[in-house]
Amino acid sequence: MRAIVLDSTGVAFQPDYPLPDPMHGEVLVRVVRAGVCETDLQLVRGYMGFRGVLGHEFVGVAQDGPLEGERVVSEINCSCWKCELCRSGLANHCPNRTVLGILNHDGAFADYICVPARNLHWVPDEVSTDEAVFVEPLAAAFQIPAQVRLESGQRVTVLGDGRLGNLCAQVIQLFGCNVTVIGKYAKKLELLGKLGIKTCLLDNVQPQRDADIVVDCTGSVTGLTAAVRFVRPRGTVVLKTTVVDELTLSMAPFVIDEIQLVGSRCGPFAEALDALKSKRIDVTPLISARFPLPQGPHAIETASTSSVLKVLLDIEED
Amino acid sequence: MRAIVLDSTGVAFQPDYPLPDPMHGEVLVRVVRAGVCETDLQLVRGYMGFRGVLGHEFVGVAQDGPLEGERVVSEINCSCWKCELCRSGLANHCPNRTVLGILNHDGAFADYICVPARNLHWVPDEVSTDEAVFVEPLAAAFQIPAQVRLESGQRVTVLGDGRLGNLCAQVIQLFGCNVTVIGKYAKKLELLGKLGIKTCLLDNVQPQRDADIVVDCTGSVTGLTAAVRFVRPRGTVVLKTTVVDELTLSMAPFVIDEIQLVGSRCGPFAEALDALKSKRIDVTPLISARFPLPQGPHAIETASTSSVLKVLLDIEED
Repeated sequence: MRAIVLDSTGVAFQPDYPLPDPMHGEVLVRVVRAGVCETDLQLVRGYMGFRGVLGHEFVGVAQDGPLEGERVVSEINCSCWKCELCRSGLANHCPNRTVLGILNHDGAFADYICVPARNLHWVPDEVSTDEAVFVEPLAAAFQIPAQVRLESGQRVTVLGDGRLGNLCAQVIQLFGCNVTVIGKYAKKLELLGKLGIKTCLLDNVQPQRDADIVVDCTGSVTGLTAAVRFVRPRGTVVLKTTVVDELTLSMAPFVIDEIQLVGSRCGPFAEALDALKSKRIDVTPLISARFPLPQGPHAIETASTSSVLKVLLDIEED
Repeated sequence: MRAIVLDSTGVAFQPDYPLPDPMHGEVLVRVVRAGVCETDLQLVRGYMGFRGVLGHEFVGVAQDGPLEGERVVSEINCSCWKCELCRSGLANHCPNRTVLGILNHDGAFADYICVPARNLHWVPDEVSTDEAVFVEPLAAAFQIPAQVRLESGQRVTVLGDGRLGNLCAQVIQLFGCNVTVIGKYAKKLELLGKLGIKTCLLDNVQPQRDADIVVDCTGSVTGLTAAVRFVRPRGTVVLKTTVVDELTLSMAPFVIDEIQLVGSRCGPFAEALDALKSKRIDVTPLISARFPLPQGPHAIETASTSSVLKVLLDIEED
């Protein structure tokens, strides 16, 4: 099959990559469309030391199992369901897990992918294939209210106007919070403005240390340093950025101001699908470009340029 | 009056430092005894850029005001009580505050100190003057249950067998948690063992990433890096260490493992006094040495040596 593969020499299109072989409990999924994520760019830079087929945001058609022939999306953590963490409801943190396109499991930038049957979610007819590509990152945005209490009127600052910043801001807006997105790109901020979300160019902002919650979606190692300048004492910083680089910072402000830092990763697919189905979240304006699968390396390069938001890979016509 | 003063040349005893002049709402307190804290050592190293009389853990006798003639301890944050943070119940985070012996306010290593009358707490007769010196750091330990839900049976790892680590472990033990203190000094760990608290020498420990809560009381900039190796996914790291140095670390584990970091500083004096009064916390075994006020610089030097716990300054006979 065709696949976009990361190895020690970089990212390349391979026309004859071996078809994956479903393990016990796994289902073969024919991939229809996929999205390029910030994490893919980090993986190419060496994050996690991943080797194999990239891609973890995708829509496909199940080739067997209970959802055979149906349009599906898939959670990315493949857990053992036997260890203490899995049994205590923290399967996404299973120490034995593989992660699609990120950790010891080939991803979705390919004609086919194998995923555990229990990871699949049926895509309702009201959700288009383009929209469904956003379920995985949108679920990550819905992880914020799953971890942090969001209340009407709270001042929430989202740092970063990119793909994830946009989705996080839209989700937080649903909870009646007073959201402001701070970003570098007028065009990206404009998209948020159209949704009634307040925005501010980074160059024009004077941090007031008055935000109840700051969400770091910068995708930059220095996002946390900036977040500390915006959050109020006893406030919360939600960290969404995962980068390969290390950060040098003073931890003293965390203690002096009793700041709470919450690392936040994957989230609830059901809520993301429901928000898309009910049109409470608007994702299609985020699509900046689309490429056929063989142009995957170029698509990844395009996704790393500052002017674009989501880049899609058309793998098969739906 | 006599005072231990930090200026650009270092710490020195001054026999003729000017007597402090109470501002509106302040009370003059004759200092009887004081304790040297890790923060004092950091201040000497340049933390906060403090200049003036050191010392913020102390017992004295109020010279005027409603507690005139009584033995008192004092909260260290002197807040404006007018700003938004003060009005919202976060007076300890008042942006206009001074802090005794730490920020724009002379401290307690002196014959007299001025403190806001509302900061004073009466010391019950059941609490000795030696014990009462520990109220400030013990309150800081009680800040942990004020910020983080402690439940019976939770696995809590305290990193650091020093002054603050000992007090935090004792407080957490009160909540029925399964506490283990990890430290470098057998003699310090022995003290905790006598109180029925599990201990382990750092050299003998293999981090299992299974602690529900890790409390960093190392006083070392690298304490946080160690804490991440002990905490379980979705666990909580309580950061008590304030140091002048910056830390270089990868933030990715915080996101991947969805770790929560909680900065924790000053705490409730009333709870600390009550715990001492009811003998639920044992502090006097922590006293390693005591010096008269003129030997303050030597006392500070002694407190920075690894074998000692609390060093007291006897300022006046009580």
